[in-house]
Amino acid sequence: MKILLSGCCGRMGRVVTRLAEEQEDAVIVAGVDVAPGDGLPYPVYATFDDVKEAADVVLDFSNASGIDGLLVYAVNRNLPVVIATTGLSQSQQQAVEAASRSIPVFASGNMSLGVNLMAALVKKAAQILGDKADIEIVEAHHNQKVDAPSGTAYMLLKAVNNGLEQDRMPEYDRHSRRQKRPKNEIGMHSLRGGTIVGEHQVIFAGQDEIVTISHSARSREIFAVGALKAAAFVVGKQPGMYDMNDLIGD
Amino acid sequence: MKILLSGCCGRMGRVVTRLAEEQEDAVIVAGVDVAPGDGLPYPVYATFDDVKEAADVVLDFSNASGIDGLLVYAVNRNLPVVIATTGLSQSQQQAVEAASRSIPVFASGNMSLGVNLMAALVKKAAQILGDKADIEIVEAHHNQKVDAPSGTAYMLLKAVNNGLEQDRMPEYDRHSRRQKRPKNEIGMHSLRGGTIVGEHQVIFAGQDEIVTISHSARSREIFAVGALKAAAFVVGKQPGMYDMNDLIGD
Amino acid sequence: MKILLSGCCGRMGRVVTRLAEEQEDAVIVAGVDVAPGDGLPYPVYATFDDVKEAADVVLDFSNASGIDGLLVYAVNRNLPVVIATTGLSQSQQQAVEAASRSIPVFASGNMSLGVNLMAALVKKAAQILGDKADIEIVEAHHNQKVDAPSGTAYMLLKAVNNGLEQDRMPEYDRHSRRQKRPKNEIGMHSLRGGTIVGEHQVIFAGQDEIVTISHSARSREIFAVGALKAAAFVVGKQPGMYDMNDLIGD
Amino acid sequence: MKILLSGCCGRMGRVVTRLAEEQEDAVIVAGVDVAPGDGLPYPVYATFDDVKEAADVVLDFSNASGIDGLLVYAVNRNLPVVIATTGLSQSQQQAVEAASRSIPVFASGNMSLGVNLMAALVKKAAQILGDKADIEIVEAHHNQKVDAPSGTAYMLLKAVNNGLEQDRMPEYDRHSRRQKRPKNEIGMHSLRGGTIVGEHQVIFAGQDEIVTISHSARSREIFAVGALKAAAFVVGKQPGMYDMNDLIGD
Repeated sequence: MKILLSGCCGRMGRVVTRLAEEQEDAVIVAGVDVAPGDGLPYPVYATFDDVKEAADVVLDFSNASGIDGLLVYAVNRNLPVVIATTGLSQSQQQAVEAASRSIPVFASGNMSLGVNLMAALVKKAAQILGDKADIEIVEAHHNQKVDAPSGTAYMLLKAVNNGLEQDRMPEYDRHSRRQKRPKNEIGMHSLRGGTIVGEHQVIFAGQDEIVTISHSARSREIFAVGALKAAAFVVGKQPGMYDMNDLIGD
Repeated sequence: MKILLSGCCGRMGRVVTRLAEEQEDAVIVAGVDVAPGDGLPYPVYATFDDVKEAADVVLDFSNASGIDGLLVYAVNRNLPVVIATTGLSQSQQQAVEAASRSIPVFASGNMSLGVNLMAALVKKAAQILGDKADIEIVEAHHNQKVDAPSGTAYMLLKAVNNGLEQDRMPEYDRHSRRQKRPKNEIGMHSLRGGTIVGEHQVIFAGQDEIVTISHSARSREIFAVGALKAAAFVVGKQPGMYDMNDLIGD
Repeated sequence: MKILLSGCCGRMGRVVTRLAEEQEDAVIVAGVDVAPGDGLPYPVYATFDDVKEAADVVLDFSNASGIDGLLVYAVNRNLPVVIATTGLSQSQQQAVEAASRSIPVFASGNMSLGVNLMAALVKKAAQILGDKADIEIVEAHHNQKVDAPSGTAYMLLKAVNNGLEQDRMPEYDRHSRRQKRPKNEIGMHSLRGGTIVGEHQVIFAGQDEIVTISHSARSREIFAVGALKAAAFVVGKQPGMYDMNDLIGD
Repeated sequence: MKILLSGCCGRMGRVVTRLAEEQEDAVIVAGVDVAPGDGLPYPVYATFDDVKEAADVVLDFSNASGIDGLLVYAVNRNLPVVIATTGLSQSQQQAVEAASRSIPVFASGNMSLGVNLMAALVKKAAQILGDKADIEIVEAHHNQKVDAPSGTAYMLLKAVNNGLEQDRMPEYDRHSRRQKRPKNEIGMHSLRGGTIVGEHQVIFAGQDEIVTISHSARSREIFAVGALKAAAFVVGKQPGMYDMNDLIGD
C-alpha cells in the first residue's frame, strides 16, 4: 500500500511516518504540508499539485485548512481517502460527502482502534447484561484537562445506550443525595491526576458478578495506528462514507 | 414463566429458588429432588411422576442421576428443558440429543451469563486487534483450587483463538528463558490466594494502548442467574440444542 | 487463647465461631447472648453471671445493649476486652473508658485489618508522594447503599490528609466546571452497582507514574478476622485504650 | 537548590533539565558531558575542571566513566552528590564509599520514588497481613524485554520477605502441578505485551479480603523525578551513604 500523507510534518504526521516504516505492508511515497519540514524519508511538497508520486490512498492528518485541495486531488485521481482531521466546517463536511459519491472516504473523530472496539464491546455487553446489571463509566486523564467527562466517556455512554432498550441518564454526583441507586442511571466518574494520557472503564455490576471493559492509552500514537489500519481497509472499497464501525464490523 | 425445578433441595437449587422469588416474570411451581428437604415455597416431589403442577419449562440443577427421568417427563409433555448439570455420561448425552429432536434443550457447562459474554467479547477483540496486539490471560482463584489454569481460562483461550486467523499457543512460564516475546504465544497466569471465587482477565496489549476485558465472580449464584435467563430464552423455541452462544447471539 | 464470645448467636458471632474453629491458637470456651440459639460448639449463656468457663479475653459482637454487663464482668475478673460493637451511647463510651483504667480495652468502629492497614499505607504514601502527586479516592458498593461516599472512603480521606502538610478538600463532581485540576483537592468517586460488598482505591498520580493502594472486601467476614487478631493482640497488654493503629504499629 | 548536572546531554539528562525548569525550588546552573550537545539552558562543559558556576549539589546521570572525576570534584568542594548511574565497577564503588566519609552520597539503582515507596508499603503490608494472607506478584512489560521476572519484581519479592518472619519462595509455574497452594510460596507472574513501560502489583489475598499495592510507570521520566527529590534530600546532610529508604523513612 502506497500512502500519500497530508500533514506529514506535524506531530501526528511524524508519528505515522515512524510507524509506517515499521510496517511491511505500507510505505509513504510522498508527503504534503503547508509548512514543509526536514528529516522525512520521502519527498515533501507544499501543495497537492506538486506531487509526482503515485499512491494507493491519501491519509490526512493536516488541520482542516488543507482539506479542500486534498478532496479535489483524490477525486481527480480516483483515490480513496482517510480523514483523521477534526474541526471541519459545515461546507467542508458537505465537500467530503460530495467526494464520497465518487471515491471511498473513511472519516472518524477518534482514530483509535482500541477505543472504537471498546465502544462496540460495551454496546454488546449492554445488550446482554443490561437488564440485570448496573452500569458505571470511569475515566481518568491528566491534571491539565479542563473538561469532564471526556469526549470518549460520552461516546461510551452513547454506545451503552445503543445496546439498551431504554436510555439511561448520566449521574455525576451521588454525595449530595441519600437514596438507593435508581436502575435507570449510569454513574460517570472523572478522575484527574498527574500526566495520565487517557483511561476508560465501563463496569457492568450484576448479581455477584462484574464484567469490566477497559482501555488505557499510553500516548497519542494510537491514533496513527488506527489511521494506518483505516488506510488498508478503505483501499479497494466502493465509493461512500466509512468509519471505524465498518472496520470493526459492528 | 412457570418453572419446574429439578434438584431444588441442593445448594444451587436453593439459590435459584431465592432468585426466582425476587423476579417478577418467573415462578417456581414445583420441585423435584431425590432427597426432598424443607423450607421451600412450593411442593417438592421425589420423582417427576408425582408432579401435579403444570410448568412452562424444566430447569435442572440436580446431579446427573436424575437426568433420564427428567428427559422422559419433558418429552412426554413437550416442555423445553434447561440442563445446568455437568458430568453426564456418554449415553446420557445421547439421550439429551435424542430429546432435542422433539423439544428445545438448553445445555451449558458454564451457566454464567457474564463468563459466556466475556468469551464472545474476547473473540471479537481478537478479530479486530489480534494482528497488532499481544494477548495475555490472567486468572485468580482461592488457595484450595488444585488445578491451574482454570477451566474458564482455557475456555477464554479457545475463544481468543476462534477470533484469530492462526492459533496461538499457551505459555505458562517465562522465568526460565531469556528472549523477546514471540508473537504467537498467549501468556497464561494463574494466581492463587485466600478465598477468591474467580477472576478472569484477557489483556490485549498493542502499540501504546491496552484493552482489557475482565470478569469477577463473587459467588456461585451467578450460575443461577444465567440458568433463569436460559429458561426464559428457551421457552417457545423450536426443538434443538441451544447454549449460551445462542442466548448471547454471538 | 480462650475466648468468651458476647453476641455469639448473631450473624457475626456465628462467623467468628466458624473462623475460630479453623484457627489453632484460639478457642471459644463459652458464649453469651440475650437470645441464646442452637448449634454452637460451646455452652451459651443468657447473661455473663451464668458463665462458668475461664477465658483469657472477652470478644464483643453483641449490640450495644450488652455492653454494661460485659464491662462489669471483665473488670471484676481483670480480663482484656475487644469491642467490635458500634453505636454505643455517650454514657456507655464513658463506661468503656473508665474500664480501660483497670483493663486493656481494644475498640474500633471498623475491625477489618485490611482496611486499617490500607489507611496506614495511604498516610505513608501521602507523606512521600503528596507534594508531587494528585490524589483520588474511588469506592464501589452495592446498589442498595443509600449514603455516598462510604464511611471508609472518608476514613481514607482523613488518613491521606494526616500524611499531608496541608489538608486537601474533597471534590465530588467535576462535570459542571471547566478548569484544570487544582492541586488542593481530592476527587471522591462513588460507584454503585449490583451486590458489590465494598471496594476502595486510593490513587496517587504523579509525573508519569501512578501508585494505587486498594482493598476489596468480599464478605463481612473480614470484621471477624480482624476481631480475632485484635483479641490475640490485647491479651497481656497494660490497661488502656487500644485500636487498630496500635495493632498495625502505625 | 543549585544543581550541577553530570551527563546533561544524554536522554535522562535532558529529561532532568526539562523537569527542573518546571520546579521553582531547583535550578541547574551548569552541566558536564563528555559529548557536549546543544540546546540546554545552562553552560555545558566537557570536564568538571572547566566548571565555573557554584552549585549546592552534583547530580549524576552520566554513564560510569565520568564517576571518578565527579567524586574528586565533589570532595574538593565539599558538595553532596546524587548518583543515578548504574554499572559501577568494584573499584568505583569503593571510591564512592571513600568519598562518603567526607561528603553525603545518595546512590540508588532505581531512582523511582514510586517504586521505592511501593517496596516500603509491601514490606509493611507483609508484616501486618503476612501470616493470614497469600501473596502474589504480577508485573507487565513490553514485548522486547528479554528477562523475566523484572528486576523490580525481585526487589518487591525481597521487600515482602523482609516483612515476613520466614522467607517464602517464588513460584513461577503452576500449570504443571495439581495441588492446593502451599502457604510458603509467592506466585510470580510476568506479562509481556505491546509497549508497556512497567507495571507492578503485589496482592495480599486473605479471608474474604484482598489488599493490592500497585505501581504503573508511564515513561522513564520517573527516574528524573526521583533524582531531583534525592538532590533536595541530600543537601545539608552529614557525610555518609544514603539511599531511597532514607528518603522514604522506611
